[in-house]
Formats: sequence, structure tokens, C-alpha cells
Amino acid sequence: MEKRTEISDLGEFGLIDHLTRNFEIYNASTIIGVGDDAAVIDHFGKQTVVTTDLLIEGIHFDLSYTPLKHLGYKSVIVNLSDVYAMNAQPTQITVSIGISNRFSVEALDEFYEGIYAACKKYKVDLVGGDTSSSGKGFIISVTALGEVAPDKFVQRSTAQQGDLICVSGDVGGAFLGLTLLEREKAIYMQSPGVQPDLEGEDYIVGKLLMPEARKDIIAFFEKNNITPTSMQDVSDGLSSEILHITKKSNLGCMIFEEKLPIHEKSRMAAYKFNLDPTACALSGGEDYELIFTLKQEDYEKITLNEDIAVIGYTTAPEEGTRIKTKGGNLYDITAQGWNAFKG
Amino acid sequence: MEKRTEISDLGEFGLIDHLTRNFEIYNASTIIGVGDDAAVIDHFGKQTVVTTDLLIEGIHFDLSYTPLKHLGYKSVIVNLSDVYAMNAQPTQITVSIGISNRFSVEALDEFYEGIYAACKKYKVDLVGGDTSSSGKGFIISVTALGEVAPDKFVQRSTAQQGDLICVSGDVGGAFLGLTLLEREKAIYMQSPGVQPDLEGEDYIVGKLLMPEARKDIIAFFEKNNITPTSMQDVSDGLSSEILHITKKSNLGCMIFEEKLPIHEKSRMAAYKFNLDPTACALSGGEDYELIFTLKQEDYEKITLNEDIAVIGYTTAPEEGTRIKTKGGNLYDITAQGWNAFKG
Repeated sequence: MEKRTEISDLGEFGLIDHLTRNFEIYNASTIIGVGDDAAVIDHFGKQTVVTTDLLIEGIHFDLSYTPLKHLGYKSVIVNLSDVYAMNAQPTQITVSIGISNRFSVEALDEFYEGIYAACKKYKVDLVGGDTSSSGKGFIISVTALGEVAPDKFVQRSTAQQGDLICVSGDVGGAFLGLTLLEREKAIYMQSPGVQPDLEGEDYIVGKLLMPEARKDIIAFFEKNNITPTSMQDVSDGLSSEILHITKKSNLGCMIFEEKLPIHEKSRMAAYKFNLDPTACALSGGEDYELIFTLKQEDYEKITLNEDIAVIGYTTAPEEGTRIKTKGGNLYDITAQGWNAFKG
Repeated sequence: MEKRTEISDLGEFGLIDHLTRNFEIYNASTIIGVGDDAAVIDHFGKQTVVTTDLLIEGIHFDLSYTPLKHLGYKSVIVNLSDVYAMNAQPTQITVSIGISNRFSVEALDEFYEGIYAACKKYKVDLVGGDTSSSGKGFIISVTALGEVAPDKFVQRSTAQQGDLICVSGDVGGAFLGLTLLEREKAIYMQSPGVQPDLEGEDYIVGKLLMPEARKDIIAFFEKNNITPTSMQDVSDGLSSEILHITKKSNLGCMIFEEKLPIHEKSRMAAYKFNLDPTACALSGGEDYELIFTLKQEDYEKITLNEDIAVIGYTTAPEEGTRIKTKGGNLYDITAQGWNAFKG
């Protein structure tokens, strides 16, 4: 039988000590970490970037198919992704959790193993947090700090007309992973004896449950002396992010359906579920890729990186935000994908 | 009839724009605030302090007697208090909220009015956050950043043997305010026609619902060239905080009951509820005062400030953590107050 330690056996302070006992410090700027009123961070000559995300059970994640370790990992990743989207390097995080008494200390250990793995991989320090009981469900609040050389940060609102619009990696996979897991859950609820059929779908399931943040793209920019004119991460869905950048930069855009980076495994999964891969790529969220705009003269530089796709360009605002399909038709892009859905 | 705007009418991004539309920037270090993946903060030559708190409806607050504006104010204060407890100046906050659909936009406006009032009073900038739906209840996560001159921060673990133990303001009031409001709520639940009897109790109710952070004490330290040897804020209760400092600093202590700063209004309320004022002062939480230790030679300096009480001194660890009563008896201090409760 697995060991179950009640959280009440440790108490709040005992729990924090227990959960944070193995954390190593990776950043010289971390002067004081967990265990005081606040952490202390040294940032001589750098600018600090700060971002935060709140994740609530039943809204952002479903523990019936999300392992706690993966949830811990992803809770960190979604915040690091925001830091990279500023062209900055993440350095510290705080993690607050609200937990009901249905969680054991062992369950929280699993969750923190995921936090720990992400901290180790991305070399960030856990420097604080808060642990509380919640009446119901699991609540996670992560704040990430990062640093960037003065005025090297990249905003959403600074794209220029005629810039290239680029996306890292591929999009739509996380949404298809979610679709698969929700479908298998529904089958299981009806017939608890049936084993989930996830064979060959590890790519899309991995995109959902264990996403990575694009540290490599930021490193590539630095190495090749590239500064995007605007950037953000793809969390709500590609079309939603395209509209953020164009609206905040007061621009229009032209996107080409055939240029959207869709993984072969995602495409196959979409066909299996009778979904349009393009619609999944545009409106599916949680890919944690980067979308950014570049001056046209930087085009040569990015051809060096196979993991960056040019999907279109920015236009004057009066030209609207449009997508050209493979068949040559033009549609308006909406936050939900494109207007063709309405027709 | 009061106007009720559904949150769904604005959408998530519209809601963030709406709630943050009036925020002014107070700190030159705030380069980018709300509205991008992350905020950007400049900290040339200073050290950054970061702290975070998670507040959950039904656990940390009861909306049946907590006005939303006060809740917003207090959500900021509890974090600023942690920053001051590091001997630092708060500069920026992020605020994330999870809300169920029982809240209207007008209700959130009230909450943000409180946030805004605290930001204005303490000159801190709201630089980001996350807004999410919650299945049930109101969830608040605030992270505060502050700055401190290099190595001027004060930890909990650095008290020395023979230091004076001091407390700002008075303690126990917030607990008595809570006791009063819980009592009135119970009466109201039984007899909804009975109006709450809060006459003359505005002091203790104010201590609970609208606490302040001790910015003035930190300013007094700076002006008088005082550096406490250790410090933390009083959130869980005075005895709990005394035990934190002595445990982390590997010391014992002697506290004198007659020196505990208890406001006359708190004392009267305690008698009214048949409670021991000393027990309320030791074990009641949420006062957001500062507890700190000082070298004995700084005693003269603090006599200038009537809002600082010396309540005892630190001893060798083998002498234990004790309190001497007015009657001359010695008891061990426990996180719940003192051991006399058990006898």
C-alpha cells in the first residue's frame, strides 16, 4: 500500500520545509530564497521581468488524466514561456498552492517533483510561495521573475508594417491532445472497464501534458543577433495571439494557411477526430510556442533554424487581419479561428 | 437598481483592460506595466525583494462581513507588510483573481478600488496579473516586489543573544474584530431581523478589515540609522512569530506579559467576550505589525518612537522560549499562545 501522510501531520510550516527541502540555487542573483517574509534578488544593471499565472482545478486542468508531476512541470513552464516571450531569461519563481484535505503529502511531493524538474531544466530558483488549505480543489499560483539587458525586452505592441510573422515549433498539438484525453475520459466514464486508447498519440498528449518553453529560440536570437520587433507566447491560440499583436501594434496582417506549422502527428489526429487541422492550429491553445515579428532583412538569418516558420506578414491596419487558404480564398481571422466557421 | 454587468460581456481581456484602466505609475523602475506577457522592472544597484500570498474565500475571508473594497485593500497590505518586514520598500505588485459567475463587473470594480487605494497610499505599481474563472468562490493571489539597498535586508534568522525583542503598534485587535464579526454573523443567521451591534467597536473591526502595513516603522529605522538584527511581520500571531525568530536564530527568549502592547479598545472587547487579553495578543493573528530584535545599544534610539514596545529579550537556546506573567509565573510559549491553556 502506498504511504499516505496527512498534511495536518506536518502543519503549514512543516509542509513548506518538506516541499522545498531539496531545492538548489542556480542563479547568483538569488540572495535569499524560501523561508523568510520575502526572497531577495540582486539585479545590478539588468531589468527585471515579472509574470504570474493562476491555475484552478476544473478550469485549467483535470486531475483525472493529468499526473501531478506533469501539472507541477507545466505550472512552471507556462510562466517561463511568458518570460521568454519578453526576450528575457527566467531566473526565479514563487509557487503558491491551495489544497483541500483530499491531497496527501505524497501527492504534493509528486507535484513538487514536477516543479523541481522544470526548475532544474530551465535553471530557475524557487524562492518563495504560500501554502494554504482550500475548501475544494487544487489552486496553483506561480509568479516568475526574469532578467533582460536594459531595453532589450520585446513587447507585443511594437510590430511594424511589412514585418514577417513567424511561429516557433508547431501549433494545434496541445488542443488535439486535450480532445483525445477528453474523449477517452468520456468513454471511461460510460464504460469504466475500457482501457484508454492512446497508442501512437504520445506526441499530442505530450504537447498538452508536458509542454516546454522556447528557451532555445531566445538563445538562437541572441546568438544570431536577432531582435524581434514584437513577440508573445501562444497560450490562448494562434489566431487570438495574432489579433493581440496586430491590435496592439495597430496593424493588419496576411497569414497563409499552407505556411502554418502543423506536426504530422497532429494532422493525423485531427483527421481521426474529423477536425480541420488548420482550425486546430489557429484556435487551439496551450502550445506555448512563440509568435513574433521580424524585419524583412532578418529573413536570411532565420532560415538557419528549421524550427521557425514564416506564416505571413503585417500590413496596414485598413487591410484587416486575413488568412489566405490553400484554395486561394480570403477570410477574416477571429479570436476563435476564422470567420469561415460562421458561414 | 444597481447596475450589474456580467463579466462575460467584457471577456477576459476586456475585463483586464477595464479593471486596470486607471492605474498610475509611481515608480521610475516600472518600465512596462500591465498588458504584455510580463512586466519589466529596472533595479540598477538595488536588490529585489519578492513575496506572495494566496487568499481563498471561506478560508481567509468571509464575504458576508468583508466589503470587497476592504478585501482588495487588505490583499495588497498583507504583501506589502512582508516587504517591509525585510526592511525593504515595496515598488510593484501583481494581482491574479479567480472568480465565479456570481460576481459582477461592478463587484470587481469595488475590489479593485481597494487595490487602487492601497497602491496609491503606499506608492506601489500594479504591473500585471491573471484573471480566470473559478468554479466556486473568490481566489486572490498577490505578489509584491520591493527593493532594498544591497545587503540592507533583514532576515528572521539573524537575531543575536541578548537582543531586545520589540513590537510595533498593538496586537490582538484583529483577532477581537474577527471574534466580534463572527459573533454578530451567528446572531444574524439565527435572527435575520437583528441589526449587528458594532457600536464603539470600530477600532477592532478596522484592525481586521482594513489593516495598514508599517511603512512608518521602516522609515523611522532609516531616519534614525537603526538596523534590526532580525524582523518579520505579525500575521499568524505574536507567539508564532516569536517562535519563528528564536527557532531560526537558534535562541531562547524571555517575554514579559505586562509589556505586551494591547490597545485599550482591544482589552475592553476581550473582557466583553470573556477572553484573556494576553491570550488574544499572543495567539491572535492578522495584526500586520512588525516584530524585530535590536542590539541593546539601540535602546535609546527607539524610545523616541511611542509606537514601538520592548516586550522582552533573546536568551541562550537552552533557556527555552518563556513568558513571565504579571503574577511572576513562567510559562513556555507555544505557537497557540502559551502552555497555560493546556493546564
